[in-house]
This record gives sequence, structure tokens and C-alpha cells, in this order.
Amino acid sequence: MGPWLSPDELEFVRRKVPMVYVDVVPVRTDERGEVESIGLLLGAQDEGISRFLVSGRVLFHETIREAISRHIEKDLGPMSLPQLPQTVVPFTVAEYFPTPGAEMFDERHHAVSLCYIVPVLGECDPAADTLDVNWFSPGELRTPELQAEMMPSHARILRQVLAYLGLL
Amino acid sequence: MGPWLSPDELEFVRRKVPMVYVDVVPVRTDERGEVESIGLLLGAQDEGISRFLVSGRVLFHETIREAISRHIEKDLGPMSLPQLPQTVVPFTVAEYFPTPGAEMFDERHHAVSLCYIVPVLGECDPAADTLDVNWFSPGELRTPELQAEMMPSHARILRQVLAYLGLL
Amino acid sequence: MGPWLSPDELEFVRRKVPMVYVDVVPVRTDERGEVESIGLLLGAQDEGISRFLVSGRVLFHETIREAISRHIEKDLGPMSLPQLPQTVVPFTVAEYFPTPGAEMFDERHHAVSLCYIVPVLGECDPAADTLDVNWFSPGELRTPELQAEMMPSHARILRQVLAYLGLL
Amino acid sequence: MGPWLSPDELEFVRRKVPMVYVDVVPVRTDERGEVESIGLLLGAQDEGISRFLVSGRVLFHETIREAISRHIEKDLGPMSLPQLPQTVVPFTVAEYFPTPGAEMFDERHHAVSLCYIVPVLGECDPAADTLDVNWFSPGELRTPELQAEMMPSHARILRQVLAYLGLL
Repeated sequence: MGPWLSPDELEFVRRKVPMVYVDVVPVRTDERGEVESIGLLLGAQDEGISRFLVSGRVLFHETIREAISRHIEKDLGPMSLPQLPQTVVPFTVAEYFPTPGAEMFDERHHAVSLCYIVPVLGECDPAADTLDVNWFSPGELRTPELQAEMMPSHARILRQVLAYLGLL
Repeated sequence: MGPWLSPDELEFVRRKVPMVYVDVVPVRTDERGEVESIGLLLGAQDEGISRFLVSGRVLFHETIREAISRHIEKDLGPMSLPQLPQTVVPFTVAEYFPTPGAEMFDERHHAVSLCYIVPVLGECDPAADTLDVNWFSPGELRTPELQAEMMPSHARILRQVLAYLGLL
Repeated sequence: MGPWLSPDELEFVRRKVPMVYVDVVPVRTDERGEVESIGLLLGAQDEGISRFLVSGRVLFHETIREAISRHIEKDLGPMSLPQLPQTVVPFTVAEYFPTPGAEMFDERHHAVSLCYIVPVLGECDPAADTLDVNWFSPGELRTPELQAEMMPSHARILRQVLAYLGLL
Repeated sequence: MGPWLSPDELEFVRRKVPMVYVDVVPVRTDERGEVESIGLLLGAQDEGISRFLVSGRVLFHETIREAISRHIEKDLGPMSLPQLPQTVVPFTVAEYFPTPGAEMFDERHHAVSLCYIVPVLGECDPAADTLDVNWFSPGELRTPELQAEMMPSHARILRQVLAYLGLL
């Protein structure tokens, strides 16, 4: 029995326990380490097209590092050259709840998501189910207009990133 | 359908996805905030008597704060007066695996545990299924003898606490 | 020779090396540790009346903890009952420069300030040279109007606090 | 008037205020970001030969990032290709005091040092006043023998690094 879950099993589990997630903020930095731009995925969701972070489940028997690495490769392609963090202590923790009206809403499940900032040095290509990967400067990311194009919960994490990096 | 799981359901879920846990290190501080002692639970486990941290699952629909609070009350009693952290960013993250030989081994499941330091101001009483709560100074906690009385994975978290607090 | 500096000596040192500072954000929390309000000082400065954080120098031979404690007592009075942090790892670091146009401007000096969030349990009284201590909810603190009443550099730290606490 | 201080001025300042320092731990990582080795400088000091971290002052008008970058280049040469952190929040803060018997002793001054972990991708060469740069595995770094070859205060920071990285 491996980490794979049938759709029925996943549906069952999602109504029983919180899921472990990672949310990854891909960044490009200058030679001093200062963040120059942040990458957002563009994709079609139920509510239309929106922008979001690299995000996904931690599988049974998978380490957090492996999950970060797998989701970056899935969403940004195999040539993105991510520089994974030396520690798995997240810069913030996001709690998603399936309760309508929750500050961090996710209709699919209750998820506890560990959030990481990951510099990428290579080329990023959108995966099959995303339309594009776009890079935005801190100035653009601070605008309500761009934040309105994001899933509200991811916009909130983005504001935390900007604040954490001293860019808000 | 609430957060409650039957033993069979819990067993099923534990073989399918990582569990979300919290590990809490109860501390007593002096008036400057410096940690003077750390509380360890004493209890009977399969392998005999050992010492361990306050620890437990985050339930479906439960916030991390609620889980920390509930487990402290369960393990230290209702009069411990915990001072919960202002942020849910953990000081470290522990990854337990059910694989024999894993550095952080837990035969029951794969768990991702968010670890917190929580000062308690009140009286701590052992719960029904623990034998005692004992408080140790940093000097005592640094000894291999005391660490050998702990579950190895919890001894590792303890060393991280001591280092984080500048006490190692 | 003690930590005391004559005005001339302080002036000399301030043009030679960065000063070590602490910025403290006093908070009131609910029983779960969630921040309900943040305290800001109201005082007269060169540019008129504005709001600011508890802030000040770390003296020669003084520990960071002692400096935090001393500045809280100086600015909030002896009955504020601060709960000092268990670790001196700051939630952020602010770099003030005397260069006009600097993002974090302080005409007096170059200062490297370690920033801490400190819950207070007691009564806070304004010190002699401040007019008042006022408490604001996260909702109020998020408004541009209130932030405009603050020193710009302290408003920036405040946004970082709100983001760090998941309140932005 | 620039950041430069004459020896007399530096001596004067050092008896008046705490100095702002950075301590940098250079690391090599595997492709998952896990630390495989840590670099220590070998050099002659008053008490004989010992091992130490990359370390130095933050100058007047210099940012923390610039200081980290300058000290790495000074101690590891121009080809070390450091990957500077995205945030200047340190993983720990070290407080050095000139008081004999202090836990973190530095006869020269009272220093508040912000400590960073910095991955290096390139070649590291010892600078003129160091004898060598040596790389050690976590297993070697945990031994009391190697720690005894280090300045005691730097050995303490090293233990904090190992704990922070989950390697202790």
C-alpha cells in the first residue's frame, strides 16, 4: 500500500482530518539576496481565471523537502533550479478551513499549510494545467488590483511574504 | 459528521496521509522571560516508563491554537495558565515516520508536528494517563542521562529548544 | 567608566558606528494568545504630534532583555507587567539610516533595531515625555489613516507585525 | 567623514556602546537544500590556533546585507558565490560581552551579533590572515573534539545552527 489514494479514499480522508500542505512562493533575487520579483501561476479555477502560489499536499511517507521539490517541479517545470531552504521551519503557517466565510477558505478540506520562500535560478515553464507563470515586482504585488486577481487566501500569504521580506 | 474518528477510521487514515500534530514544550520563566525550567511528562509506554512532551493531534475543524490549548489542558490540567504564543509560526517542525530506523520514529503514523514553547504560570497536575509532571533546569536537561529517559524523538526536539533558547 | 555617555560623546559615536536598538510592540491578547490590540505611544516630535512604538538604545554592558525591560518600564510605567519573550531572536530587524530619502529614516543615526512583540498584562501609563498610550484593534491598525499618524518607519514595522501575526 | 575609524576612535567607541556584528555560517547543501557540510576558518589568535566563523562589524551607513557580503568575500575569497538570505531576520542573536567569565566572551567589546546561515556554491579560499577554510560534516561538527578547536562562543553558535537545522 503506497501513498496513492483513490478519489473516494481522498474524499473520505478530507472529511476526517486536516491535510498537510505546502505553499511555496517562488522568488528571483539580486546578487545581494534581495527579492526582485515573485512568480505567480495563472490558471483556470471554478470561479474563473486567477493567480495562485505553488501549492500542494504532502504525501504519506514524503518529507516536507520532497513535497516542496515535487510541487515546484510540477508547477514550474524541471528547469527552474530551485534553491531549497536549509531549514523546514516555515516563514508562516496557513490554516485553510472548508467553512464558508472562513478567513482562509478552501472548500475541499481543512489544510494546515507550511509556507516557504524559494529562490529559483532557472527557467520556469507553466505546467499542463496552468496557463502561465508571471513575475511581478514588489511594487506591482502591493497593488490591490493584482491582489484581487489572486485567490484571497493566497493574496493574504503574499502580503505576509512582502511584510516578512520588508517590502510592504 | 464531526471531528471524531472511530478507531478503525483513525487506523485507516493513518495509513493514508500524514497527521497534523503539535508538540508543546511547557516552560517556567523568570521575570525577564528567561527559561528557568522545562516540564516533562512521565508516563508508561509500550517500552516502559519514559519522559515526553505535551503532544497530540490537530482535529478536523480545529485551529492550531485550539489544539495547543486542548492538549495542554489534557496533559497539565485546567490550572496551568498557559501563555499561548501570539503567532502560530512554530520554532521548529518535526517529521515523524513509521519507518523503523527513521531518525524521528513513530510506529503509529507519519506525522508533521509543529513545535511550540509555551510558558505556564499556574499549577500543573498530571493527567489520568500520566504518572507525573517534572520540572528540570537547563543544566539537568543537557545531561545525556536525562535525555536517555526521554523518547528519542522528543529528546531531539528538547535539544532544539535548548539551542533555540541559547541554553545549549 | 560606565555605560553613560555625555551628549558630546553620544553625538560623536552616532557619526561613527551603527547604534543597537530595540523596537517593542506592546500587545494585549485573548486567552488563546491572539492579539486583540496593540499599544502605540502618542508624543510630540519635531514634526508635530505622532504615534510610535516603544523604542530605545541598548546600552554598553546591557543585555537585550534588560534593554527591552527598561524601555517598556520607561514608556509604559512600572505596572505594565510585560511578558518578555523566551528568545531574543527578533521577529524582524529594522535598519534606520540618517540619509534623507532612506526607506527607514532617522536623522539622528544609523541604527540596527531588533523588533519584539511583548504582551502586557497590567496597566500602562504614559511616561513624562509622552502624552498618552492608546490601544488599537487590528482593524483600526490596518487603516491608512491610523498609519499616517505614525512615524513612517514605525508604520512599516507595524505592517510587519500585523502580517507576522496573520492579521493583515 | 566616512565609515572609517582610526584605531583610537574605534577603541573609544568600543568602550561606549555595543558594536553591531554579523556572524555567518557558510554551508554546502545537497540538491534538496539539506546541509552537508559547514565551513570553519582556521587562524592564529592570541591563544593559539583555533577555528571560527565568518564574522565582522557592520560599518556606519552599511546595510546588514552589504556587511554579510563583504565579510564573506574577505574571509572566503571572491569566488565563493554566496546565496544571501532573502530576509535579514537572523536565525539567532549572539551577545558578546568583554566581562571575564561571560558565557559569550569577547575581550575587545560588547557586540550584538546577528547570525546567518549562507550557502556557498563556489570555491572558498582562505584570506591573507587565515590559514585555511575547512569543511566538516554534521557528524564531525557534533563531536566535542572539533568543538574544542573552536572559540567557545563560536562553538555555541555552531550548536545552535546544528539544532536549528535539525542536525543535533
